[in-house]
Amino acid sequence: MIRSTSLKSLAIAASLLGLGGCATVREPGPSASAAPLATPPATMQYLYGSAEAAAASAQAYAALTGQVAARLPRRASAVLAAGATLDRLRFAECGDRPTAVLFDMDETLVLNLGYEYDEARSGASFDAARWGRWEQSGAHAVSPAPGAVTALTALRAMGVTPIVNSNRSAANAKATAAALTAAGLGDFRHGETMFLKGDVDGKSAKDGRRALIAQRWCVIAMAGDQLGDFSDLFTGDPAARRAAAQAPAVASMWGSGWFILPNPVYGSGVTGDWDQVFPMDKRWADPAGKGGR
Amino acid sequence: MIRSTSLKSLAIAASLLGLGGCATVREPGPSASAAPLATPPATMQYLYGSAEAAAASAQAYAALTGQVAARLPRRASAVLAAGATLDRLRFAECGDRPTAVLFDMDETLVLNLGYEYDEARSGASFDAARWGRWEQSGAHAVSPAPGAVTALTALRAMGVTPIVNSNRSAANAKATAAALTAAGLGDFRHGETMFLKGDVDGKSAKDGRRALIAQRWCVIAMAGDQLGDFSDLFTGDPAARRAAAQAPAVASMWGSGWFILPNPVYGSGVTGDWDQVFPMDKRWADPAGKGGR
Repeated sequence: MIRSTSLKSLAIAASLLGLGGCATVREPGPSASAAPLATPPATMQYLYGSAEAAAASAQAYAALTGQVAARLPRRASAVLAAGATLDRLRFAECGDRPTAVLFDMDETLVLNLGYEYDEARSGASFDAARWGRWEQSGAHAVSPAPGAVTALTALRAMGVTPIVNSNRSAANAKATAAALTAAGLGDFRHGETMFLKGDVDGKSAKDGRRALIAQRWCVIAMAGDQLGDFSDLFTGDPAARRAAAQAPAVASMWGSGWFILPNPVYGSGVTGDWDQVFPMDKRWADPAGKGGR
Repeated sequence: MIRSTSLKSLAIAASLLGLGGCATVREPGPSASAAPLATPPATMQYLYGSAEAAAASAQAYAALTGQVAARLPRRASAVLAAGATLDRLRFAECGDRPTAVLFDMDETLVLNLGYEYDEARSGASFDAARWGRWEQSGAHAVSPAPGAVTALTALRAMGVTPIVNSNRSAANAKATAAALTAAGLGDFRHGETMFLKGDVDGKSAKDGRRALIAQRWCVIAMAGDQLGDFSDLFTGDPAARRAAAQAPAVASMWGSGWFILPNPVYGSGVTGDWDQVFPMDKRWADPAGKGGR
């Protein structure tokens, strides 16, 4: 009962914010306030400024590199096959396709410091038109995610091709490739090793592009910061998605064929009301009451 | 110049908040506001509510388990030796000591849902007395971090002993052991497999307890959510700490002997002013100016 009420509130909030149910839609974070902030939001302090998030990123890339080396002889795809369910994972065939690893771009391969600074400093909410201008003109102001350059170098040395599957616009392909190169991540070619929104369909959901890529490559690992970077099957409210990510079959993918990067700044991980985030059986009331505050 | 001004501002802010320079001191996050929040702070939505953070936690624990299995024959300590520096890592001797893995507790082995709900919902700032009451009475309202139960079960099956090094108070040892057990993490004995603040010295810094533990155990891996869970050598402003975490020798530890869990909610990763979080060479100004907002 509580859950269904919460779902309704979430749906109302999402609709007020003009958000769809898509896992890869950017949602305004704590920066979505009109008032200038004295310091960056905690989410940005953590992701862009902290040693801890840098370590988490380096750790994810180290795990990916190690697992790719281990999985290379087996050539097992990490892309779900058509018809797979989260209860029964089935994977694409590899045949004799060349070996690849599939990467999301934003907050996976690169950190969008320039855009997020501008947005947070001005107190603005996410704006698709401004993001488009960022895609076109921000190449100098992205950083590689910690560990990404080392990992991509190691993959290429193993004969494994890094491929990008991003929701940046196909119309901005040239600038996006330039941003990846500027970040030290090497060369990516649109339609060959870089697939963007609009290439297969107009969707933010990535299964269409993933299917196309899996027809051409044996994708032995995937990396992203949102569950939509792995499959479009993760749907529902935050509690349902969190449970799905921890169900045994899916849980075994994390750090094996699927590698997730931290991102508390925006996206499908930054939503949920009190009931969705804090289960009723995990609440506590300070026995000293409010007197001490 | 900008950096030194920023450092000064940070020091002033820290002193106003009654915070020391210790990496493990809890700092108020975005919940440190008097006004009730309509939804949980983004940091808590992410850490406690999202599938993405659950995946990151499961991934870290999977990497730890895999690396422990691989490192078991070598018995190489992950604890820095006395006199080690971040430029020249040297590790403790293992001798014939029994094999162990060292864990921080809060936001590493367990998620403090009950405490954080109470604090965020009431709009209160962190309060050490309330936290003490939480240590004493919150056992029912912690959750195991995703992946932790599976990992500890696997470690024990390998003959590796999980040890806790926490800044919870030695005075609350019994309740703390009960909280770990209630979370499904097994039994921990104070002074044997669980070391708390006050056991060796009164410090939040953990090197003293780590040194004691390393005299008794061959610690082949460590896990935590703050750099202070690995060494007290990580000091300085956020930018300096972030650079230190990515310097080659230290970078190679992430996902190898050191395993970090996500925590954007509080602690040493949630600090920093604009100049510390966003380097000057990674800024971008929207070419359309502010007109479009």
